[in-house]
Amino acid sequence: MENKEEDVKLGANKFTERQPIGTAAQSDKDYKEPPPAPLFEPGELKSWSFYRAGIAEFVATFLFLYITVLTVMGVNRSGKCASVGIQGIAWAFGGMIFALVYCTAGISGGHINPAVTFGLFLARKLSLTRAVFYIIMQSLGAICGAGVVKGFEGNSRYTLYGGGANVVNPGYTKGDGLGAEIIGTFVLVYTVFSATDAKRNARDSHVPILAPLPIGFAVFLVHLATIPITGTGINPARSLGAAIIFNKDHAWDDHWIFWVGPFIGAALAAVYHQIVIRAIPFKTRD
Amino acid sequence: MENKEEDVKLGANKFTERQPIGTAAQSDKDYKEPPPAPLFEPGELKSWSFYRAGIAEFVATFLFLYITVLTVMGVNRSGKCASVGIQGIAWAFGGMIFALVYCTAGISGGHINPAVTFGLFLARKLSLTRAVFYIIMQSLGAICGAGVVKGFEGNSRYTLYGGGANVVNPGYTKGDGLGAEIIGTFVLVYTVFSATDAKRNARDSHVPILAPLPIGFAVFLVHLATIPITGTGINPARSLGAAIIFNKDHAWDDHWIFWVGPFIGAALAAVYHQIVIRAIPFKTRD
Amino acid sequence: MENKEEDVKLGANKFTERQPIGTAAQSDKDYKEPPPAPLFEPGELKSWSFYRAGIAEFVATFLFLYITVLTVMGVNRSGKCASVGIQGIAWAFGGMIFALVYCTAGISGGHINPAVTFGLFLARKLSLTRAVFYIIMQSLGAICGAGVVKGFEGNSRYTLYGGGANVVNPGYTKGDGLGAEIIGTFVLVYTVFSATDAKRNARDSHVPILAPLPIGFAVFLVHLATIPITGTGINPARSLGAAIIFNKDHAWDDHWIFWVGPFIGAALAAVYHQIVIRAIPFKTRD
Amino acid sequence: MENKEEDVKLGANKFTERQPIGTAAQSDKDYKEPPPAPLFEPGELKSWSFYRAGIAEFVATFLFLYITVLTVMGVNRSGKCASVGIQGIAWAFGGMIFALVYCTAGISGGHINPAVTFGLFLARKLSLTRAVFYIIMQSLGAICGAGVVKGFEGNSRYTLYGGGANVVNPGYTKGDGLGAEIIGTFVLVYTVFSATDAKRNARDSHVPILAPLPIGFAVFLVHLATIPITGTGINPARSLGAAIIFNKDHAWDDHWIFWVGPFIGAALAAVYHQIVIRAIPFKTRD
Repeated sequence: MENKEEDVKLGANKFTERQPIGTAAQSDKDYKEPPPAPLFEPGELKSWSFYRAGIAEFVATFLFLYITVLTVMGVNRSGKCASVGIQGIAWAFGGMIFALVYCTAGISGGHINPAVTFGLFLARKLSLTRAVFYIIMQSLGAICGAGVVKGFEGNSRYTLYGGGANVVNPGYTKGDGLGAEIIGTFVLVYTVFSATDAKRNARDSHVPILAPLPIGFAVFLVHLATIPITGTGINPARSLGAAIIFNKDHAWDDHWIFWVGPFIGAALAAVYHQIVIRAIPFKTRD
Repeated sequence: MENKEEDVKLGANKFTERQPIGTAAQSDKDYKEPPPAPLFEPGELKSWSFYRAGIAEFVATFLFLYITVLTVMGVNRSGKCASVGIQGIAWAFGGMIFALVYCTAGISGGHINPAVTFGLFLARKLSLTRAVFYIIMQSLGAICGAGVVKGFEGNSRYTLYGGGANVVNPGYTKGDGLGAEIIGTFVLVYTVFSATDAKRNARDSHVPILAPLPIGFAVFLVHLATIPITGTGINPARSLGAAIIFNKDHAWDDHWIFWVGPFIGAALAAVYHQIVIRAIPFKTRD
Repeated sequence: MENKEEDVKLGANKFTERQPIGTAAQSDKDYKEPPPAPLFEPGELKSWSFYRAGIAEFVATFLFLYITVLTVMGVNRSGKCASVGIQGIAWAFGGMIFALVYCTAGISGGHINPAVTFGLFLARKLSLTRAVFYIIMQSLGAICGAGVVKGFEGNSRYTLYGGGANVVNPGYTKGDGLGAEIIGTFVLVYTVFSATDAKRNARDSHVPILAPLPIGFAVFLVHLATIPITGTGINPARSLGAAIIFNKDHAWDDHWIFWVGPFIGAALAAVYHQIVIRAIPFKTRD
Repeated sequence: MENKEEDVKLGANKFTERQPIGTAAQSDKDYKEPPPAPLFEPGELKSWSFYRAGIAEFVATFLFLYITVLTVMGVNRSGKCASVGIQGIAWAFGGMIFALVYCTAGISGGHINPAVTFGLFLARKLSLTRAVFYIIMQSLGAICGAGVVKGFEGNSRYTLYGGGANVVNPGYTKGDGLGAEIIGTFVLVYTVFSATDAKRNARDSHVPILAPLPIGFAVFLVHLATIPITGTGINPARSLGAAIIFNKDHAWDDHWIFWVGPFIGAALAAVYHQIVIRAIPFKTRD
C-alpha cells in the first residue's frame, strides 16, 4: 500500500504535506486505484442500473432547468430589487446542483452536465457507451425543463425576458466568452475530480462527506463571476435546452462557445488532476 | 446481501455506476430492506414516543410558520430593498426546514409538512394512524404560528401586507399554479426520499450526514423559482395556517391548489423513487 | 441499555418513529445518560481548562460583537443597496455563531451567549460556578468588541448609525418585543439542545457532525424574522455590549427586555427538551 | 495518553467542559502530538509531492483571484442593485476559499494565503523552505489570476472600476485599516488552527468533517464587516496580485498595510492557539 505512493518517479515522496485538514492519524489505508473503464462494456446495456442511471440524469437535468430558468424569468420580470436578484439566480444554479448531486450521486454519479461526463470519460471513469447515453439524456431533460417554463410563462413573456439563453453580452468579445467558459468549467470539473478521488476519499474525512456541497458551490461561484459576461453556461445541456426553447438567432450565433468552452475546460481539469495531482503516468501500476 | 441487489428482474445489475461520489471502497454492507409499515399499529397509540412525535411536529410547524410569516411581513412592510428582500424570504423557508429537520428527525422523522407525510405514507414508511395524527398536529401548529405573527403585527397591518397567504398571482392561470406546486413538491419529496433511503445510507457516506441540508435547500430553491407564481406553498399546513389567519375570500378561492398540487407532487416522487430508482416491484423479497 | 429507553412510564415505547433521517441500521448503542452537573465543583477552580474555557468565551464573544456591529455600521452608513444589506447583517450574526461554535465547542462548549449558558445550566449540563463565570466573560468580551468598533468608526458616526444597540422599533409594543425575544431564543436554545443531546449523538449520524451549522442557521433565521421588531437580541451579552458602548437613554429603557426575554425563552427550551422530548422526569434512573 | 492532558502545570485538568458539541462518548484516543517541523528539510526538495503542493497553491490562488476580481468588476460596472451586490462579493471570496480548501487540503494543506502559511509556520507545522515556496507560488498565482481578469475586461474598464485593489477607504485612518486587517486575519487564522488541530480532530467529530466550511465562512464574514473599511485584504497574495495588475499610486501607498496587518493577525492567532488553547509551553513532552 505504502509502495503505491512511493513509486512516483520524481522523488522519495516520504515528505508529504504536513497537517492537512482532517487527516490526523489517518493513513492511505483502504485505497486501491480502480482500473480504467473500458470504452465499451456490452454487458452494461443489459443491466437495469444502466437505464435507471440515464433516467435519473434526465429527471435531474429536467428539474435543474425548470428551477433555474423559472428563477431567471422571475428576476427579469420583476426587476432586480423586487425579486431574488442576480445573486438569487446564482443560488438557484448552485443550489440545484448541490441538491441534485446529493440525490443522484449514488444512482448515476450525479453528472447533470455533459462537460462533467466528458471530463470523467477522459479520465476513464466511465465507458464511452455510458458517456454518450448520459449526454443524450441530459440534453433531452434540459429541453423538457425549459419547455415547461415556457408553458407556464407563455410565449411572449418568455421571449421578452430572454428565456435564460446564454449569449456573449455586449462589451465582451467572443474570445472573452470562450475564455470565461473554459476557466469556469475548469473550476467545476476540478472540484468534481477532487470530490470523487477514491484515494482522497480513503484518506481525508471531509472529502466524501461534504462532496455535493463544494460542487454546488463551484457552480454558484462561477455564476457570481461570469453572469455579466455570458450569463454563465459551463453546462452544454443547460445552454442547449435554453437555446432550443428560446430559438432566436442571436442565441444560436454564440451557441458553439457553450459546447467548445466547457469541453476544453473539462479536458484541462482532467489533465491537471490526472497528470499533476495524481501523477498517474509516472506511477508503475502493479 | 449481494443477492438482494441482483434479483432485479431487468438485468444482471453487476454494472453499477462507476465512481459515485463518496462511495469509494464501500459496499452495500449493513443494508436490509425494512418491511412496509402496517396501516394500523394499535400498539403505537399506547406509546409515549407516538405522542411525543406529534408534539414535536406541532412545535416544529409552529416555529416554521412563526419565523417565515414574520419574515414575509417584514419584507412587505419595509420594501424589498430596505429589508432582507425576496431572497431573504426564500432563506427563511429553506433555512427553517433545515434547522427543524435537523432537530426533529430523530423524534418524529422531521416531516413538518403534510405532503412529506403523505409521500412517506404512500411508500409505507409510516402507518395511516401516524400519518393522520401528524397531519392534524402540523395543521394546528401552522395555525398557531401564523396567529402569533398576527398578534405581534396587529390586524390591519397583517391584512394590508397579505399575511403570507398563498394565491395564484396575476398573469398566471390556476393551471400554472397547480403545475408549479406539483413540480415544486416533487423536488422536495424526491430529496426527502433520497435522504431517507436506508440502502443509500448504508452505502454513500454523504447521504446520512448531510441529510437535513439538501432538504432545506430544496425548499429554498423552490421558493426562489415559484414565489412569483404562487408565493410557493408545497406545504399544505403552511398554506392552511396562513389562509385561516388571513381569512380573505381570494386566499380561500385558490386554496384547493395548495392541497391537491403538493399531494400529487408527493405521490409522483414516491412512485419515481420506489418504482424507478429502487425498482422495488421488480425485486423478489426474501 | 435497551431498558433505559423502555422505562418511560407512559408506554411500551417499542413503537419508535419509522425511518428517521440518518438512522438506518443504527441502535442506541454507546449511549449513557450523564449525571447532572453539581451546583458547585470546587475542583474546577483549580484546573487550567476552566480558565481557558472562560478566555475562549471572552475571545469568541469579542470577535462576535466586533464582526457583527461593524457589519451593522457599514449597512447603516452606506444605505441598503450599496452595502451587504439587512440580509447581510443576518448572515453576519448567524455565520459568526457557526464559525465560533465550530472553533470553541471543544474548549468551552461554545456558548457565546448567556441565554445558552442559562438554558444548559437549567438542564444541569454545567455547574453554577461555571455558568456565572461564562456569563461574566461573555459580557466583558461583548463590551470590548463593541468598543473596538466605536474606536474604528469614531464617536459621532457610531452614535449616528445606532451602534447596533437593540431597541423595540416604532410600531411595536414592549410586549411584542418581549414575545419576539422569547420565541427567538427558544428557537436557538432548542437547536442547541438538539445538537448537544448525547443520546441523539449516539444514534443519528447527522447530529454530531453538522452541529455548529444548524445553531448558526437558527441565529440567522431569527434575525431574518425579528430585525424589524427589535433588531434581534436573543443574546443578552450582545445587547449589553452594544448598549454600554452606545449608552443612550432609549437603548437603556428597553434593555431589560433583552435579558428577561432570552432567559424565559431559554428556560422554555430547556423544559421542552428535558420534559417533553427526553421525558427525563418519567424515567427511573439506575 | 490520558497523561498527556494531565501534565498541564496549572491544574488537575480532570474538570473538562461538560457536554461539548459532538463529543459524546468519545475520548482523546488516537491523538499524538506531532513533533514540530524542522526549519529546513533538504529531502523535501527531492520529492514530487513538494512541487505538486506548490503547483496546487499556484492554481488555487490563480482561480481565487480570477473568480473574486471578476465578481468585483461585475458589481462595480452594473451598480449594486443590478448585480450580485456587495454581499455577492463577500460570497465570492468566502465561497472560493471553501471550495479551494476542500480541493487542495489533501495536496498542499490548502493555504491559498501567505498569512495562513505564516501562521502555520510560526506554529512549526511546516518547514521554512516550504513556507517560502508556498508564498512565492501564491503570489505568482494571484498576479496571473488578476491579469486574466484585466485581459477580459480591457485596460480602461479595469482601471475605471478599481481592479479589486485594496485601499483604506475615505473616512478611515491608516490605523483603522491596519487594525481591521489584524483582527480580520486573526478570525481567519484562528479558524484554520481550530480546524487543523490534530487533537480536536481525534476527539470532536464535527471538526475534521466540516473543516473547509468554517474556514470559508470566516473569510465571508470578515468581508461582510470590513469591505467598507479596506475592501478586505486578510490575504497578502490577493492584495499583491490586484495591486500589481491595477498598478496605480494610491493602491501602492497603502500596500504595506495588507502585508503587515495579516502577518500580525496570523501571529496573534498562532500565539492564542498554541499558548492559551493548547497550553503547549506548559506541557512536559515525553
